[in-house]
Amino acid sequence: MPHTPPPPHILDFLRGPNPAVIASNRPDGQPVSVATWYLLEDDGRILVNMDESRRRLHYLRRDPRVSLTVLAEHNWGTHVSVQGTLVDLSSDPDLGGIDKLSRHYTGNPYPVRDRGRVNGWIVIESWHGWQIKG
Amino acid sequence: MPHTPPPPHILDFLRGPNPAVIASNRPDGQPVSVATWYLLEDDGRILVNMDESRRRLHYLRRDPRVSLTVLAEHNWGTHVSVQGTLVDLSSDPDLGGIDKLSRHYTGNPYPVRDRGRVNGWIVIESWHGWQIKG
Repeated sequence: MPHTPPPPHILDFLRGPNPAVIASNRPDGQPVSVATWYLLEDDGRILVNMDESRRRLHYLRRDPRVSLTVLAEHNWGTHVSVQGTLVDLSSDPDLGGIDKLSRHYTGNPYPVRDRGRVNGWIVIESWHGWQIKG
Repeated sequence: MPHTPPPPHILDFLRGPNPAVIASNRPDGQPVSVATWYLLEDDGRILVNMDESRRRLHYLRRDPRVSLTVLAEHNWGTHVSVQGTLVDLSSDPDLGGIDKLSRHYTGNPYPVRDRGRVNGWIVIESWHGWQIKG
């Protein structure tokens, strides 16, 4: 997997509100994956956001290594995976993070307003694209 | 995550040719995820198949723990994740495994006939479903 930053055509693909799955490890090393919203920020990091009750959050504080696979919505043979580290895990008190994700995917703020949320950002360390033309 | 076998409505969902992502670990414990075809077999195990040149194959022989996230094709807020172990990794000399997967997803045999393939089966150990109604 290339260790250079993703080139523009890969970043363009990642900018879309695509279906995505994030994987991390339980403390015993068992991989766990789950569908997720994500947003490529202008600084090249990728925002994700979780309900504060998720056990996964505790695991991610111990082992912040993640992998994110992003599928093209109408042709998922086209996909990009990035590996990296989830940094700056921090609470989202005004729901600004989850609202940003929700607007990106649905056009509207996040409908659930009474649950604590947590932001994190994936720093991309490696990536690979399939059937993505440069 | 429930440790009982998935109930019928989860198995029904898994029977479809849905978009899916499989996660496993590199030897250093870094999770790696990638889009994959999968097929729920009648015995409750899940068939996957890889090109024999994949580095991932070597890693999976060392650490066979995987997670598979399956998305509903037209509403990926609906998804099921299973965790388990990839067993019986074995070559697919007549391409019967990859053809079975290809027919499930495309209706046709796998078009690439000159590359070695490897079958494996996920034994489900735990699962979780989101927005799946029982």
